[in-house]
Amino acid sequence: MARVLVDVMLKPEILDPQGQAVQRALPRMGFDSVTNVRQGKRFELELADADPATLRATAEQMAEKLLANTVIEDFKVTVLPADSSENA
Amino acid sequence: MARVLVDVMLKPEILDPQGQAVQRALPRMGFDSVTNVRQGKRFELELADADPATLRATAEQMAEKLLANTVIEDFKVTVLPADSSENA
Repeated sequence: MARVLVDVMLKPEILDPQGQAVQRALPRMGFDSVTNVRQGKRFELELADADPATLRATAEQMAEKLLANTVIEDFKVTVLPADSSENA
Repeated sequence: MARVLVDVMLKPEILDPQGQAVQRALPRMGFDSVTNVRQGKRFELELADADPATLRATAEQMAEKLLANTVIEDFKVTVLPADSSENA
């Protein structure tokens, strides 16, 4: 069993109202140093495959078909080492 | 200006209906090797601070106060190198 992370973020040119809401809230809470916030999604997948190249290819297909809307979102696949218990 | 990532995931013992929905959809699309899916949030923050220790402390406070609900969610802060243009 192996673990793969898929991080999905809106493309830079796409408006991000969730990120803007956070960005506007932070200064009111005393965090004045924030200049930009973007919010995206993270998927942690556990797969039965073992080969890292296969894992990456499978995760990229999943991202393109289901996890991300590639018209407005970019995604990044990270294959975690087999013995890793942490989140990269 | 520096960039910080805050990844927020539901704690392992908390039910994740979003992740379950994805997990059930994937086999119907031909991805049979998926054994588990968890879905979380990723925040990309740009801050005016420069010192990595300050950045981490600030981001951890933001996560505890606004970005994560620490009753049901865990978070992880990643301070990106100043010259990094990629998403870790």
